[in-house]
Amino acid sequence: MTIEVDYRFPPGVDAERQAKIIAIGQTAGSWDARFSHREDVLRSHLGEVVKGITEPDGFSIATIRFPEANVENDIPSLLTMIFGKYSMAGAAKVVAVRLPENYGRHPKLGITGIRERLGVVNRPLVMAIFKPALGLSANDHAAILQEVASAGLDIIKDDEIMADLEVAPTLKRLEACCQVLDQVKQQTGRTVLYAVNVTGAAGKLIEKARLLVREGANALLLNVLTYGFSVLDALAADPEIDVPIFAHPALAGALCASPDYGMAYSVVLGTLMAHGGADAVLYPAHYGSLPFDSAEEARIRDNLRSRNVFPVPSAGIHPGIVPKALSDYGQDVILNAGTGIMDHPDGSAAGVKAFFEALERLRQGQSFNLETLPPSPLRRAFEKWGSGRV
Amino acid sequence: MTIEVDYRFPPGVDAERQAKIIAIGQTAGSWDARFSHREDVLRSHLGEVVKGITEPDGFSIATIRFPEANVENDIPSLLTMIFGKYSMAGAAKVVAVRLPENYGRHPKLGITGIRERLGVVNRPLVMAIFKPALGLSANDHAAILQEVASAGLDIIKDDEIMADLEVAPTLKRLEACCQVLDQVKQQTGRTVLYAVNVTGAAGKLIEKARLLVREGANALLLNVLTYGFSVLDALAADPEIDVPIFAHPALAGALCASPDYGMAYSVVLGTLMAHGGADAVLYPAHYGSLPFDSAEEARIRDNLRSRNVFPVPSAGIHPGIVPKALSDYGQDVILNAGTGIMDHPDGSAAGVKAFFEALERLRQGQSFNLETLPPSPLRRAFEKWGSGRV
Repeated sequence: MTIEVDYRFPPGVDAERQAKIIAIGQTAGSWDARFSHREDVLRSHLGEVVKGITEPDGFSIATIRFPEANVENDIPSLLTMIFGKYSMAGAAKVVAVRLPENYGRHPKLGITGIRERLGVVNRPLVMAIFKPALGLSANDHAAILQEVASAGLDIIKDDEIMADLEVAPTLKRLEACCQVLDQVKQQTGRTVLYAVNVTGAAGKLIEKARLLVREGANALLLNVLTYGFSVLDALAADPEIDVPIFAHPALAGALCASPDYGMAYSVVLGTLMAHGGADAVLYPAHYGSLPFDSAEEARIRDNLRSRNVFPVPSAGIHPGIVPKALSDYGQDVILNAGTGIMDHPDGSAAGVKAFFEALERLRQGQSFNLETLPPSPLRRAFEKWGSGRV
Repeated sequence: MTIEVDYRFPPGVDAERQAKIIAIGQTAGSWDARFSHREDVLRSHLGEVVKGITEPDGFSIATIRFPEANVENDIPSLLTMIFGKYSMAGAAKVVAVRLPENYGRHPKLGITGIRERLGVVNRPLVMAIFKPALGLSANDHAAILQEVASAGLDIIKDDEIMADLEVAPTLKRLEACCQVLDQVKQQTGRTVLYAVNVTGAAGKLIEKARLLVREGANALLLNVLTYGFSVLDALAADPEIDVPIFAHPALAGALCASPDYGMAYSVVLGTLMAHGGADAVLYPAHYGSLPFDSAEEARIRDNLRSRNVFPVPSAGIHPGIVPKALSDYGQDVILNAGTGIMDHPDGSAAGVKAFFEALERLRQGQSFNLETLPPSPLRRAFEKWGSGRV
């Protein structure tokens, strides 16, 4: 099996020449007569230029095929090969990576497994983020969780910035929140997932993840790009971590936002996460608060779903965008809101209810006009954030 | 203590507004009356806009001060805070990060420790890279090492692409090379360091690193950016890993090469590596084969040396650049050549000798004119690669 990568070069770059440099320089390199006894083996490691095309806008795309035998069936060795040294060679962007089906990992749980844990099969999931991001006590977290969980929330997550701080230890936060989760389970039979942010130096991080799971964490949040794909790999491989891993895109813009350098969002947050072991991946929605391209968002969605990974369009999500999100995503999507739930004018419980009200109106084919809405959490949300028709 | 970060914005961006968004959005976020009981704590986590200036070219630089209490004294939590979500917010580049002296790690060995291990105090070190990168057997590696080590080489490293492959297991390569290193030690008393590329999923990678060290590896190579800063942190913290860690910059261009996005090379390969636990850091030399800015290179050098981390300018290094390198670096530099040693017309031993010949000529103040050089490895190198006067 082979690995195919599309590199895009801006006008003025000799793409054919660059493609050859990549195919050789990022694999075996060149050799001379001293290595003639290893000729066949050396040749078997070389990359191959499959094709090159120049688009009408002057940009060129070169496709290189790499032998799978060069890498370790994981994302870090793949990245080193396809864009390690070459990333420093000038303007070039990795716009697509096509991996064999068996390359890397499949999610342990993914869309189907997360739905099973929650017992929710036929609607989008609603997810909230603890806000403010820093400065709350464990009891504050528990109080917030009490409100939103009672209102029907499916999933909550730590803010990605919330580290394991002396003033706010992760384990204490989990302990306080677990009491709420247990209570909700007892009272309603409903499971609510809490994705706890797992942090630290690699070895200790894995130990901490195991400890958190033992202590009741039923989901984990990982900042994959700041901690490393090899950390995701280790968590995904660990039999003790039998909970879904939510991948956060922190730092993705540093790799992906430039038009002519780095890698496409759909590669990093789509393909690599989907083959890297994530169960659900967060990324900006194009109608949210961050600038994002709708075509890239669609590619992320498709790359994730092709491996049963849950897409989580995020950032600036509020109840008004629900019709748009469902038209883009259908049912297999997690609607993830931070302030869009927490800052609802009537409190975070109303924030959760507004989302479910929106889902129910959509299901019943009812209108989303502010003017015709009855007084309700949804109406209050629309009054604050707009009805989001785009 | 506080952390200061400089963000650069291109012309047309409202830098003042962006600075406020960063200071609040990348820390506690906003809050309302419900959290008035936590007002003081919340406020203590906020970032602060220290200053903003607009340069004559229209670019603006905003400096934000972050509380050290928000993060875990490591690089991953720092990155999540200073450029996690915000990296996706539009054109902005992190051009400087100033950390407290005690933030993160100091190298276990660094410049002084590596010199002690080698017993070389008063000259630049000469380092080679195994080439071709893939396709050699363990015996091929040993044969190459035999040649260059006998010629006086100080350090050799795996190519960064060389993973732990079924066809070429890392442990076998180490075993074959250790025999050579032992032999050189016995015959000459000289220590030669071999930086073995350590790879794999995070937990197993750390186990493998310990195993490699037990089996004789006296240095390690880590692709920090593709494996993750938390892996570097774990290796640096591990008492069993009592060998220098050479950090390779693979993938750095994806984070750093864009003028208006991502982070400066001097931040990622300088500041973050120096506080992340690396003992020596490789990066492109501006007179090498990759495009690189000389001012950025100087900043990397200074950021590394300020914490006793060895600078290793690389890529396209050959004996002709030695005068230039020493004028930029003085003695505390590792001259790292791949093909510049391995592809010497008279073989890799001659490649090593050419470097030492260049160092000796410099020491004695002798000329570097090709015309006046006696027949020698250096002359042959000049004939192939030029005398590199820049």
